[in-house]
Amino acid sequence: MSNKVHERSMEVEEEESSKKASPKIQELPKKMKKILNNIWKVGKEDPRRVKHALKVGVSLTLVSLLYLLEPLFKGVGNSAMWAVLTVVVVLEFSAGATLCKGLNRGLGTLIAGSLAFFIEFVVNDSGKIFRAIFIGAAVFIIGAVITYLRFIPYIKKNYDYGMLIFLLTFNLITVSSYRVDTVIKIAHERFYTIAIGVGICLLMSLLVFPIWSGEDLHKSTVAKLQGLSLSIEACVNEYFEEEKDKETSDSEDMIYNGYKTVLDSKSTDEALAMYSSWEPRHTRHCHRFPWQHYVKVGAVLRQFGYSVVALHGCLKTEIQTPRSIRVLFKDPCVRLAGELCKVLSELAASIQNRRLCSPEILSESLQVALQDLNSALKSQPKLFLGSNENGNNISQNGNSGRHNPYVSQHINKDTNDAGSRLAQNAVVSRPGTPRGERTSRLGPNGGVSFSRLKADTLERRSTAVTSGERRILRQQLSKIVVMTSLEFSEALPFAAFASLLVEMVARLDNVIEEVEELGTIACFKEYNTDTDRTDVEVRVEKPADLVVGVE
Amino acid sequence: MSNKVHERSMEVEEEESSKKASPKIQELPKKMKKILNNIWKVGKEDPRRVKHALKVGVSLTLVSLLYLLEPLFKGVGNSAMWAVLTVVVVLEFSAGATLCKGLNRGLGTLIAGSLAFFIEFVVNDSGKIFRAIFIGAAVFIIGAVITYLRFIPYIKKNYDYGMLIFLLTFNLITVSSYRVDTVIKIAHERFYTIAIGVGICLLMSLLVFPIWSGEDLHKSTVAKLQGLSLSIEACVNEYFEEEKDKETSDSEDMIYNGYKTVLDSKSTDEALAMYSSWEPRHTRHCHRFPWQHYVKVGAVLRQFGYSVVALHGCLKTEIQTPRSIRVLFKDPCVRLAGELCKVLSELAASIQNRRLCSPEILSESLQVALQDLNSALKSQPKLFLGSNENGNNISQNGNSGRHNPYVSQHINKDTNDAGSRLAQNAVVSRPGTPRGERTSRLGPNGGVSFSRLKADTLERRSTAVTSGERRILRQQLSKIVVMTSLEFSEALPFAAFASLLVEMVARLDNVIEEVEELGTIACFKEYNTDTDRTDVEVRVEKPADLVVGVE
Repeated sequence: MSNKVHERSMEVEEEESSKKASPKIQELPKKMKKILNNIWKVGKEDPRRVKHALKVGVSLTLVSLLYLLEPLFKGVGNSAMWAVLTVVVVLEFSAGATLCKGLNRGLGTLIAGSLAFFIEFVVNDSGKIFRAIFIGAAVFIIGAVITYLRFIPYIKKNYDYGMLIFLLTFNLITVSSYRVDTVIKIAHERFYTIAIGVGICLLMSLLVFPIWSGEDLHKSTVAKLQGLSLSIEACVNEYFEEEKDKETSDSEDMIYNGYKTVLDSKSTDEALAMYSSWEPRHTRHCHRFPWQHYVKVGAVLRQFGYSVVALHGCLKTEIQTPRSIRVLFKDPCVRLAGELCKVLSELAASIQNRRLCSPEILSESLQVALQDLNSALKSQPKLFLGSNENGNNISQNGNSGRHNPYVSQHINKDTNDAGSRLAQNAVVSRPGTPRGERTSRLGPNGGVSFSRLKADTLERRSTAVTSGERRILRQQLSKIVVMTSLEFSEALPFAAFASLLVEMVARLDNVIEEVEELGTIACFKEYNTDTDRTDVEVRVEKPADLVVGVE
Repeated sequence: MSNKVHERSMEVEEEESSKKASPKIQELPKKMKKILNNIWKVGKEDPRRVKHALKVGVSLTLVSLLYLLEPLFKGVGNSAMWAVLTVVVVLEFSAGATLCKGLNRGLGTLIAGSLAFFIEFVVNDSGKIFRAIFIGAAVFIIGAVITYLRFIPYIKKNYDYGMLIFLLTFNLITVSSYRVDTVIKIAHERFYTIAIGVGICLLMSLLVFPIWSGEDLHKSTVAKLQGLSLSIEACVNEYFEEEKDKETSDSEDMIYNGYKTVLDSKSTDEALAMYSSWEPRHTRHCHRFPWQHYVKVGAVLRQFGYSVVALHGCLKTEIQTPRSIRVLFKDPCVRLAGELCKVLSELAASIQNRRLCSPEILSESLQVALQDLNSALKSQPKLFLGSNENGNNISQNGNSGRHNPYVSQHINKDTNDAGSRLAQNAVVSRPGTPRGERTSRLGPNGGVSFSRLKADTLERRSTAVTSGERRILRQQLSKIVVMTSLEFSEALPFAAFASLLVEMVARLDNVIEEVEELGTIACFKEYNTDTDRTDVEVRVEKPADLVVGVE
């Protein structure tokens, strides 16, 4: 998790350095290829982007015809330019966004035009100087007030663009009215050319390959549920995996990608929901798109996601329960996780197929899995005693061959902390490298490659002042004292892991409730026992051998 | 946590219903007062908003003078309107955002103007029909290509507005060139009036009460560190609090508000960082504002924040360690949390005062606190055995008077699950109500108010079909079976709590590292032992009585 953070910040740095580096001529073709690749990827990721680009091109050409074709130009005149401007600004990716912008633009122009006309009416008979002062004052007051109102959250969310257009049109008309006498004509022309522009935009976005934000919101909700399920599955599998150095980076990515979209979904969800609230009904399924309920499901999923992050955190804590102990609880944990994933997959399937969830969504097997975990925990009471001898005792019985590893490992690790951290960073910056390298670099006693790493550290931190160096050393020393004197109960981290799994089962309830409510409000169809049962696939393979109770 | 989600979704619903409800005349003054209150609050929250509104008013008035004053108008002419438009669109809240938009607008106009001029040059001598076709094709191609390019993440992030303006200007000039012969004049006028507009905007935003995004980013980082510290403190205090019904909703809010800003900070941080990357150096402290490092610190803090969410989750799990057991570990946990908060506060103080952090930031007392927690855990080995008798045994010795509460409570709770959930929702929707009400409503046997609540449930779910009702009942039943048959080790949830605290200490390391790196790169001043020591305040009061070992 934290290495992902580093990775991304590395990307930022790379971007920076690539901007600064003088482009060598030999590298130009390579760079061009990379850029073209990027451009290609954008379209491949979501082919609707290509369609949208073509739609914009067509709309612009259509609106240009107003100016290019003689008969049309005679009707509209020079102000056809406003229509062109409108199309450029209003035509957005999704129908909802276009509607939101278009109606905001139309409404803003209409209201501003009326107000400007009113002001013109008031100052019509006054002298020139008075008019100039009055116009200046009106511009100042309206400008300040509208800008202030745009900070109000409700207005910012729904009518920000309308306010901007209001300000624009008002200033345009009021100020021009000082020198031009045909203000009404200006206002009128501006309004109806904008209406033409908005009309073309709506036509294109609602009728030609329409892209619905509501549909995106629906799909992203399904994807989030599936992602969480995959994340939990990969997490549990990795926690109980026997060999560490096999394709861990793959499963790392899987875990991270699974919950990443959920965690960062707030702003995207809210934007999509806002746009879809502007969209007309576009399916037979529902009277009105229940965008608020998708946002609610998203919020509940984020809450659930935080537990998954915490579970992932268990894989990466500094203090780890030895693998030999973990393996005792492998079966019940994997089964419980499997049941959790099954429920999440069923929820995803139910939303995807727009049907209510299975009445047996909280199945017997979930209960059995919970009970099994419970009895497994009870069958190993000594584990939670947390004395050192106990830890050794169990390690000797275990099969991982890592005898009480964290004590010795941590002493080494912390002596070289600055170095190992660096090594970790290095490993992390190359996504393909397996995590095992970190330990192997340290050597059996941790001191083999220490001098080299230390040199790296000094080199890297050369910007820091000497007192900074001293400070870092002092810190490392104080931390060695802290870590070596720790002898926490070895099973404590596992307890946290198990507790989080149980906690997730409890939180699942909130998720089910929200999804059910969504189903009711969105008029999903009834669950059909015969046809819908096959939807749920169980992806976690259950290990056949029961390890619990063997010892 | 989850009730916060409900609360917010309630707000959404309220908003909805307030929109739909027909405004009664008696309620109008009340409503007006509420709206005025909201408007007032926006300015009170951040007085810079008022300043910004006034700045926009002044800029608009200034730019209107171009049109209103005779000598200026003679120089600029009718295209002064472009300057007005530019000011409306470009002048943003912060200096960085204004610079970003202004330069994008200027650059976009310049490049589009050049391209349009080139096309005009190519088709200059052709026939009218060919020209019309050529212009139409150019509009289509450029429109589609630019729209497509705007999807590329790098361009979307930095140059989205520039691309839009490019498209706008290109269409404007190319299309007009069909009927107007003075294209160069149009392009020229458009460019220099836009330059005047941008100039006024930059003048206002850089010189008159400048608002720096970098400054905001700096302050928000400090606030996030402080918020996390407050959150942890409140979490631990509430976990070990003896009476539940005293001002819990206050501490709930405190915990939630503390980490909320951290969790939702991603998009805000990135926007602020993007704007501040456009800002010139504006302080003596630093050669260049290290916006990437603030983003990095933000990412690490979000990771830390997820642990705090998980810790908060421990307060709300369905299965709880009895208070009588928790109290045994109160002192070491509170002390460890206190040390954590101390480190976070010191980091906040160091960033706030732009100085490096104290060299003793990882102090002896953190180590002592960790050791104390360790020995406290070891001194109570029986707790992690997880049998029922054991739980009762300890409850009898304890002082909370809740003897093995979760077993009986859960049976009641789950019988009325639908009802109690409703009651919970009701309680939750009124933030001021103490949480204790929920239990009191259920009555001693949980069945007293059951019929009433059940009726509510039926009423509320009246939209659901009858089979849905049956499904819910069946679910409740299956859940009763699950929950009552659970006899998890009672100390397991506490183990998770303790483990999360220890995990936080480990994660603190990442935070310290990033803040130190930020300090080095941002050229913060050296730590001064005499003057800077007083910055750190320890806010967690340490309880005097040592409970551990008394039993």
